[in-house]
Amino acid sequence: MSEEALVLTVESPASCLRCRNCGAQFPLIAVHACAECFGPLEVGYDQEKLNAVTRAQIEAGPQNIWRYAPLLPVGQDPETRATLNPGMTKLVRADRLGAELGFTAPLWVKDDSGNPTHAFKDRVVSLALTAAKGLGFTSVACASTGNLANSVAAHAARIGWPATVFIPADLEPSKIIASAVYAPRLVAVDGSYDDVNRLTSELGETDEFESTAFVNQNVRPYYAEGSKTLGYEVAEQLGWKIPAQVVIPIASGSLLTKIDKAFAELAKIGLVPNTPWKVFGAQSLGCSPVAEAFHAGHDVVQPVRPTGIAKSLNIGNPADGPYVLDAVRRTGGSIAVADDDDIREGISLLARTTGIFAETAGGVTVSCLAKLVKDGLIDTSQETVIYNTGEGLKTADVLDVHPTHRIKPTLKSATEAGLLS
Amino acid sequence: MSEEALVLTVESPASCLRCRNCGAQFPLIAVHACAECFGPLEVGYDQEKLNAVTRAQIEAGPQNIWRYAPLLPVGQDPETRATLNPGMTKLVRADRLGAELGFTAPLWVKDDSGNPTHAFKDRVVSLALTAAKGLGFTSVACASTGNLANSVAAHAARIGWPATVFIPADLEPSKIIASAVYAPRLVAVDGSYDDVNRLTSELGETDEFESTAFVNQNVRPYYAEGSKTLGYEVAEQLGWKIPAQVVIPIASGSLLTKIDKAFAELAKIGLVPNTPWKVFGAQSLGCSPVAEAFHAGHDVVQPVRPTGIAKSLNIGNPADGPYVLDAVRRTGGSIAVADDDDIREGISLLARTTGIFAETAGGVTVSCLAKLVKDGLIDTSQETVIYNTGEGLKTADVLDVHPTHRIKPTLKSATEAGLLS
Repeated sequence: MSEEALVLTVESPASCLRCRNCGAQFPLIAVHACAECFGPLEVGYDQEKLNAVTRAQIEAGPQNIWRYAPLLPVGQDPETRATLNPGMTKLVRADRLGAELGFTAPLWVKDDSGNPTHAFKDRVVSLALTAAKGLGFTSVACASTGNLANSVAAHAARIGWPATVFIPADLEPSKIIASAVYAPRLVAVDGSYDDVNRLTSELGETDEFESTAFVNQNVRPYYAEGSKTLGYEVAEQLGWKIPAQVVIPIASGSLLTKIDKAFAELAKIGLVPNTPWKVFGAQSLGCSPVAEAFHAGHDVVQPVRPTGIAKSLNIGNPADGPYVLDAVRRTGGSIAVADDDDIREGISLLARTTGIFAETAGGVTVSCLAKLVKDGLIDTSQETVIYNTGEGLKTADVLDVHPTHRIKPTLKSATEAGLLS
Repeated sequence: MSEEALVLTVESPASCLRCRNCGAQFPLIAVHACAECFGPLEVGYDQEKLNAVTRAQIEAGPQNIWRYAPLLPVGQDPETRATLNPGMTKLVRADRLGAELGFTAPLWVKDDSGNPTHAFKDRVVSLALTAAKGLGFTSVACASTGNLANSVAAHAARIGWPATVFIPADLEPSKIIASAVYAPRLVAVDGSYDDVNRLTSELGETDEFESTAFVNQNVRPYYAEGSKTLGYEVAEQLGWKIPAQVVIPIASGSLLTKIDKAFAELAKIGLVPNTPWKVFGAQSLGCSPVAEAFHAGHDVVQPVRPTGIAKSLNIGNPADGPYVLDAVRRTGGSIAVADDDDIREGISLLARTTGIFAETAGGVTVSCLAKLVKDGLIDTSQETVIYNTGEGLKTADVLDVHPTHRIKPTLKSATEAGLLS
């Protein structure tokens, strides 16, 4: 199987791959870098087809990402999908959190821990595998900071494909188990995510992996489009409008840029009023190259060696860094940073005010929300949505929380412990 | 506040509490044992109101348990609800699992790990807290084997109520953390669940806990009705029909009896065809008092001291044991038992064939399904639904799964590990 032969032939609104750097166009193939300039490719659409999409059409769809199939490059026919059917996760009104932070306008948490493998990655993997199937691949692989590994392994188990999943060896135990349980080839690599990613780029060029879709490499343009659904859903769940402010964690930066793209698409099609929105980013202090570039006024991002507990965000050389800078600057947002103690405090604040248990990435986002409010960069009189991208159970080992009392099963012991006066 | 004063006054199809033992009727009060005979009370309904409910009415409701509010005792008015809005979790077609077990008819997994705190307990807690609010309580407590603790603590955080959560001190670390993170009074008790339950029964009688709803004690009749939604949803998701066979894990036994009750209600109302169904139970070898009574032909259940890894099922003195025996015998089902190795194997089998990562209780259920098929008690030519009641991340510590390869981030190391030939 040669990559040149692979072209998506399904009927969809996607019309081409387009270089985000030089604008060169290509057919719908299994390549993610421009043959002209090595810039990143993204999916281009037939705007007339997009313009024909209606709210009613979407609302009549299933309660998952595939309701937006008319706005996606693959998966229009249910039979073609390779998917756990993620999406339509809860948009939770966070009144008690809003009150603590001084909000007068509604504050919402888009809680993507409700997805099948409890992270937003199910969205992108469903797009990647559906594209992979359409392109003729027969196995799947990825480099991952953990959540992607869980999702790729679970998707492969559902559809019966062989999977090879590459992770940094020092990942959280829960994320390792939640990949291994699906019985993929699970390869622990002594190195950072960026090291793992470099290795899988090389492996993708070998004969042995010729029939393998690397979800965030050769099918990345399709994969990345899955994140748009996190913008579509929020807009629909708010009653078809764009929130005035959003706070989004940054790893590769793809999620942030695709939510921004989704809002722009909806407004262009006319599915929502074209109201302004501001995009705010959240990074951890242990890996804040995009925040640093933003505050230094740079257009490019200087790679760093990540540290710290927010391992799912620990991408030191973020592929979409420059596009994040574009989106944040264009919309008038900002990027905040949270250290490890802030992250733990953010997890606790979210949990005790909303009942949502977020992983470290969610702690980063909540803590950055609080900072952005404190610094006057987020307007508490404007409707705001923050994205929780993953589940607290996956990173529970970083918390230092315990029972408040320990007793024997007697009223006497309960009294001595102060539970009865 | 005296309990005698507490009567639910909301408009609902519920008409009374009725003793399941002697039939005595009571108003909708905060009591769970019959004043005449100490038998368990359950909610009675106005059958004429139930008969008026239509499929269209339910289908027009929200994508959570409250779509069935016309069949529930509380929560008809959204403003009265105290809830994380659980429910409408995925019913997953398990073709690869079915093929391994020799099914020719569809096999489905109702995957309740998709609930907000990733177990079916969110359903019952939402009912309990909504009833508690209607009854005038101002705080909440529970005795729990873990999942209930997580759900009560999360619900209390969402609505801002004080919570006191009692757990056996030896629970799985993840279940302790996933309660503690919400900052309730979390009381670790040196003893079994049955010891904890006895203690909370005594505490419920004290002045200090007079204003406290114990979700599985004084508001248990309302609480238990939440489990009916697991029957309603499966019937609706199958296109409004009752599956021929269901396999359900047994802890207190309440879940199994309520799913059976839900099917009977739907048929009686005429929302589904009145086709026969068989109810199968699943217990772990470390705590199998209901299975033992079933196979010995007894009508009562002899309490045991639980052991083994399926801690969420470790109730040695199951309150609904006799009613489980009734339901299983009446429908022509059976009860199987799985030991700790079987449970781990069940978790792995489900994961690698469906992409669903279940907790130990789910491992019990899958393993028992396989045994029931092997013993010819489940008919593989009949449509079958198994219930996964909780999330694998909560009991990940029992698994012995690991990366299959460990390498350096180089092609040389990948080759040496056999990843490239």
